[in-house]
Amino acid sequence: MANPRSTTRAGRSTGAVTLQRVAEHAGVSIATASRVLHGGGSRTVGEELRRRVESAARELGYVSNAPAQALARSATSVVGLIVHDVADPYFAAIAAGAMRAARRQRLMIMIAATFRDPELEIEYVRSLRAQRARALLLAGSGTDDRSLTDRLAAELAGFREDGGRVACIGERGAGPAVPLDHAGGAARAATELWRLGHRRIGVVAGPAELLTVQQRLAGARQALAQLGGELPDSRVVFADFTRAGGREAALELLAREPGLTAVLALNDVMAAGVLAAVQDDLGRAVPGDVSVVGFDDVPFAVDLRPALTTVRLPLEEAGERAVQLVVEEAPADRPPLGVSLVVRDSTGPAPQR
Amino acid sequence: MANPRSTTRAGRSTGAVTLQRVAEHAGVSIATASRVLHGGGSRTVGEELRRRVESAARELGYVSNAPAQALARSATSVVGLIVHDVADPYFAAIAAGAMRAARRQRLMIMIAATFRDPELEIEYVRSLRAQRARALLLAGSGTDDRSLTDRLAAELAGFREDGGRVACIGERGAGPAVPLDHAGGAARAATELWRLGHRRIGVVAGPAELLTVQQRLAGARQALAQLGGELPDSRVVFADFTRAGGREAALELLAREPGLTAVLALNDVMAAGVLAAVQDDLGRAVPGDVSVVGFDDVPFAVDLRPALTTVRLPLEEAGERAVQLVVEEAPADRPPLGVSLVVRDSTGPAPQR
Repeated sequence: MANPRSTTRAGRSTGAVTLQRVAEHAGVSIATASRVLHGGGSRTVGEELRRRVESAARELGYVSNAPAQALARSATSVVGLIVHDVADPYFAAIAAGAMRAARRQRLMIMIAATFRDPELEIEYVRSLRAQRARALLLAGSGTDDRSLTDRLAAELAGFREDGGRVACIGERGAGPAVPLDHAGGAARAATELWRLGHRRIGVVAGPAELLTVQQRLAGARQALAQLGGELPDSRVVFADFTRAGGREAALELLAREPGLTAVLALNDVMAAGVLAAVQDDLGRAVPGDVSVVGFDDVPFAVDLRPALTTVRLPLEEAGERAVQLVVEEAPADRPPLGVSLVVRDSTGPAPQR
Repeated sequence: MANPRSTTRAGRSTGAVTLQRVAEHAGVSIATASRVLHGGGSRTVGEELRRRVESAARELGYVSNAPAQALARSATSVVGLIVHDVADPYFAAIAAGAMRAARRQRLMIMIAATFRDPELEIEYVRSLRAQRARALLLAGSGTDDRSLTDRLAAELAGFREDGGRVACIGERGAGPAVPLDHAGGAARAATELWRLGHRRIGVVAGPAELLTVQQRLAGARQALAQLGGELPDSRVVFADFTRAGGREAALELLAREPGLTAVLALNDVMAAGVLAAVQDDLGRAVPGDVSVVGFDDVPFAVDLRPALTTVRLPLEEAGERAVQLVVEEAPADRPPLGVSLVVRDSTGPAPQR
């Protein structure tokens, strides 16, 4: 963590209020005023002192000069959170958890979205390094593109050299991670479908190059193999992790394999598209003709027609833990985050032929 | 816009690669290298030159030192976007539009969420000012709390004094705004319900202190008054802008006024809760017994049971326009953004008694 020594402030417009003036006005040391106004340091400041410093700063119109501070301390209180898509509730849940933990540390989470462009992810890492962000959380899935992964690793190494901390949500081989059991969750979903008598199960998957997709797919495939079933490539269709992607993929899958009785969608947003394809486009019943399972348990899953059976990942908690990882608040041996299957109305017994 | 003069870089670890070395390696002037790597300036750089500079920077491992640059230029390429709730698709849509516009300008959008805590909004403004963010977009609704509004205005004035630009999405009296026709949208929804024969209409509203809520409520009330109807206070229940808030408010509203035949929810997330309350908790049919209208047309509105009739606001376009406002890319006289009513399956004729 950065050294919270009192900083000398760079020249500003005339009449600039210095940290020293704030400290005098509040009757505290400069170190205490700095700790309250700039954050950082391991010692906490009591509520009464904090109030006095904050009210003095407000009265005098003090503005901390972050660029000057950053030069002096080599770290700001900013924690960058890089996600794929702000419109995907998966990332909104992670962000909500990260912000809750950040507030306790008086850190500011700033969210950047890449729209799944790995080049843009690298650009954001570079920019957050240049801004001397204190830490960086990578919430999106990595890819299996070796050259991109290497370039990202080089940027992250630079970020760490400057004293920044990095954590990932989900394993992606780019530093310490809050593991998410993507494979285990998919295995649960596949096992539940098997238990209901489904023997011809298809998968509507997100982009094939994403590690998360590969992990979820592998989990489903392995579970089915252990049960004596199979998931051949012909029963997997890859598409965008969006509602439109799910709809198109489901239509392609069911045109290719009309005898499927169940579809596992690898996220809930895609599952919404699968439900639309099966019920509205094909006029078939869910779960009477086809059972549908999603993944993530985003807030609207319960409101779909029918309410969606889905794999629940503890995403808010994962976001919290990622912040704890970068501020060293995390206890050493934490039990891994659990996954569970939330059974609602979109799954039922396999239809009799 | 900040002056893109070539900056002297502050001391870094040994062997730091300077902008000058990058410029020499690429065979361009320092000014050109700066324009490519730091952004800013009104002149554009050709694709070929840009590629040369970027590849030289990559080869040499150049990292721009943003704090030093910010001191020299008094502005970074960061644009802060302050929203209420990242989990609300309303803000995700605004953010997506803002990011699209920002990419064209090579600006970085950093999103901060306040969870509707006005104090936290003020803190974020202060922090973005201290970081020398180039601009600031306020996407959340303002409140009618005079003292909070004044304190926010003071922070925004300071931000502007330092050369930062500010724009709001929706009028909130805090600077130039991309207007959103909240009142007009609510009037459309109320008029449609009236046309369908509904005469006892209730409203499930978000927090009473939010200007957006007040504008939407006023629009519905005025439209009904003009049609010869009314919206007495007993037919309005305020709650959180969440699914749980909508569910509780609908139960209270229909307990108080069991004869209502239609409910207007002031956002779609609340509408999801209203649908659950009416159908699952009360066992009444939508739209057979009660029609339900939402507001915003978020992506999942079409997937609700039944598909939600709702007011469509062009939120992505509003986000784009807000970025254009702060970079002066906006044409002078733009037509205001339109609102429309998207009629789906949750509305129908008022039931005969």
